[in-house]
Amino acid sequence: MTPDEFRAAGHAMVDRIAAYLDSVGEQRIVPDIAPGDVYAALPSTAPATTTDVDTLMADIDRVIIPNLSHWQHPGWFAYFPANTSYASILAELLSAGLGVQGMSWVTSPAATEVETLMCDWMLDLLGLPRSFRSDTATGGGVIQGSASEATLVAILAARWRATQGAVNDTGDTSRLVAYRTAQAHSSIDKGLRIAGIGEQRIRTVAHDADLAMDPADLARQMTADVDAGLQPFFVCSTHGTTSTLAMDPTAAIADAIDTVDGAGTHRVWLHVDAAMAGIAALDPDQRWVNDGVDRADSYCTNPHKWMGVNFDCTLFWTVDRHAMLGALSILPAYLRSTAADSGAIDYRDWQIPLGRRFRALKLLFVLRLDGVEPIIEMLRHHLRLANDLAARVAAHPRLEIAAPPRLGLVCLSHIDGDAATDALIDAVNASGRHLVTRTEVDGRSLLRVSIGARTTAAEHVDALWDDIHAHS
Amino acid sequence: MTPDEFRAAGHAMVDRIAAYLDSVGEQRIVPDIAPGDVYAALPSTAPATTTDVDTLMADIDRVIIPNLSHWQHPGWFAYFPANTSYASILAELLSAGLGVQGMSWVTSPAATEVETLMCDWMLDLLGLPRSFRSDTATGGGVIQGSASEATLVAILAARWRATQGAVNDTGDTSRLVAYRTAQAHSSIDKGLRIAGIGEQRIRTVAHDADLAMDPADLARQMTADVDAGLQPFFVCSTHGTTSTLAMDPTAAIADAIDTVDGAGTHRVWLHVDAAMAGIAALDPDQRWVNDGVDRADSYCTNPHKWMGVNFDCTLFWTVDRHAMLGALSILPAYLRSTAADSGAIDYRDWQIPLGRRFRALKLLFVLRLDGVEPIIEMLRHHLRLANDLAARVAAHPRLEIAAPPRLGLVCLSHIDGDAATDALIDAVNASGRHLVTRTEVDGRSLLRVSIGARTTAAEHVDALWDDIHAHS
Repeated sequence: MTPDEFRAAGHAMVDRIAAYLDSVGEQRIVPDIAPGDVYAALPSTAPATTTDVDTLMADIDRVIIPNLSHWQHPGWFAYFPANTSYASILAELLSAGLGVQGMSWVTSPAATEVETLMCDWMLDLLGLPRSFRSDTATGGGVIQGSASEATLVAILAARWRATQGAVNDTGDTSRLVAYRTAQAHSSIDKGLRIAGIGEQRIRTVAHDADLAMDPADLARQMTADVDAGLQPFFVCSTHGTTSTLAMDPTAAIADAIDTVDGAGTHRVWLHVDAAMAGIAALDPDQRWVNDGVDRADSYCTNPHKWMGVNFDCTLFWTVDRHAMLGALSILPAYLRSTAADSGAIDYRDWQIPLGRRFRALKLLFVLRLDGVEPIIEMLRHHLRLANDLAARVAAHPRLEIAAPPRLGLVCLSHIDGDAATDALIDAVNASGRHLVTRTEVDGRSLLRVSIGARTTAAEHVDALWDDIHAHS
Repeated sequence: MTPDEFRAAGHAMVDRIAAYLDSVGEQRIVPDIAPGDVYAALPSTAPATTTDVDTLMADIDRVIIPNLSHWQHPGWFAYFPANTSYASILAELLSAGLGVQGMSWVTSPAATEVETLMCDWMLDLLGLPRSFRSDTATGGGVIQGSASEATLVAILAARWRATQGAVNDTGDTSRLVAYRTAQAHSSIDKGLRIAGIGEQRIRTVAHDADLAMDPADLARQMTADVDAGLQPFFVCSTHGTTSTLAMDPTAAIADAIDTVDGAGTHRVWLHVDAAMAGIAALDPDQRWVNDGVDRADSYCTNPHKWMGVNFDCTLFWTVDRHAMLGALSILPAYLRSTAADSGAIDYRDWQIPLGRRFRALKLLFVLRLDGVEPIIEMLRHHLRLANDLAARVAAHPRLEIAAPPRLGLVCLSHIDGDAATDALIDAVNASGRHLVTRTEVDGRSLLRVSIGARTTAAEHVDALWDDIHAHS
């Protein structure tokens, strides 16, 4: 492809994306196909001859677009929001065009420093503790690809600190114990498993009626483990669980840890997973989602969920850069200090992979072109829609609110029980106009309505409610 | 930003990228700045007011672009190639615009199935074993974000198989031992560390004069470990080491493993890391880079290095899907079989993170718009340039070839020793017209010339040679 062909094709692609996002609400939100259908509709080996971009795009319009699940659809009430924005798309385009590698400072200085700056900008905008700032030298922020990776980094830093680095030599994790409730995200357990913490040493802490962690049970279980010769090393507090946006009480959890933990060099790592809800703190009225974060060793939230930054962009901060670098740096210690002395950050030592894209551009573009005010307005709009829906559910004779509505999430169930709730979910999704997902809490079936797509308006929630009402 | 503003800004961004790539050779290849300079040149908090895209781009032209290291520069002889292409940039743009999540089949069926298809297309084009194909049910391919992640997935699958899944319950890795040479990439050790294999249980296998693994030493060390009550579980064979593109002898390594290993259910996992060199197999003349891969349990190579696919895009294949899913699935076993029965692939269980972008579009665009022929031509062009350079080095009275030249890589040293080689590297890089990197092999300093940027022509290698010659 020549530069001129790229210009023409690029302009057409930009127009096409604008048209897609403008009309995505007219698509069937998820395709009605069976596994293998798309694969079978395409040539099984690479074609021997090339084609032009118009032909390729026609194929994509025919085979690929109709067979996506449309996360940008205004009727997207499933899973979690993953809203994008024009500013973010421009930034991803620029990042691809520049084609630089930000694995260390020297491999592209501006890529590293803009990322550090964006972490600091976001820290201020979210009202997070200054102890997370990169210029503290002990703390710092980084963009990870996903909350799963952020969690794994936190676990590895915790593992290093708990063993005072010995794990790097011995691999011995046999005494380490981790704690979370049954409501924690599956990536916590996956990260622990990867790090060599088996299920036998993952404790399920009790939760209260609102699905928040019970700090007293945490203290009891930690004490029992210490008495048994084991070593508590990691606690995950979730600010906004996936199923219901339940909030674990981080300050009380930190108090519980302090009663058991000597707070010495081996101290238990407290990670706050605010992947879904944390961005709500952009709105000063929702700053409660940060409660207790000043007690945490690390924290993550996802601009790629609810801030108009397209995937991938997870913000991760820690107050213990030393432990993180100890866990992830593959250089000897004396080189680490040299790098620290010069003030350069090598983000390869802050993450699992080596290579990294220039993802900070996405935050820069969104914050400078759109600004934070429209995002706050969007959040408030989603909250109003969720409140209205929750009120309708509460007033309905055959439905009930199944968990305290929080932010953009409403969980409901049918009073006739799980079978009725499951049937309702299927019926609501059958139209292809919107999509909700099922979750299960304490063995009970729930219909989740997660409101967070950029273009979701009252009419889309009304249409959903019409379907819910009609099938209840 | 309105759709119309996006269209205008998007067209301008496309033009800007075309202009950047066209003129990147005129930029100083790496900036002459100190850590903190870029950060200090930008506002320390998010501006209260927004700006228009022209103003933002002017800031980017002023502060960011000149302070990047320009990986697309035709004088880029550093690290490894990371060449991009117009087709790939278009695909990344489309992926960002669609904004879908491919974590499981149902969250966007076409994203999953196009990825499966691209893995199969690439398998054929690279001449890799059919046992890696997804339709075998036992094997399969997936796009990872980086070779580091692919390696970690291989290690975790190996750990699961060696313990027959017990590691998920117990976390016990205390008997497991891994093997690689000192030339293996640092991501191998990092992955092992993450997986709970300490340095005490990572063996450095001897290498021969060409820096290839010595299979006899591998067999000896494995036998000694078995005799000591330990369990060999993972061997990394590198096809193209980072420092010198040395080739480990995979078939002989597999033979060595077979002499020690009972080849039962706990059998040792053989991973082939062809991150850098593997793409060369697109050229039928270079198919030797696949030698012995039919004996491997897993294999990875990076289209994002030398195939014009912009980062990130690592291809990973395994012949043991069962072990990989055992290691990475967070669902109970009976759900896994249900999914397998329906034929659906949930790629979240093939990788570390949960979320994933629609990266397969990049391969689809490159293969359908450009085709494989121009890539083969590019590879051959780079090889010719490297051969010419190697001949000049060999004929030079004060330089010597420091490792067998292979593919696009030439490693040289000054006959006066390491200090002279190091001084030469600094002098060559001082011009800002090109960049080489230093490596160290068996304690000796080497100047690496890695030829692989898309627009590198004879004149750029000539300019490099002029500098090398002038300072030797």
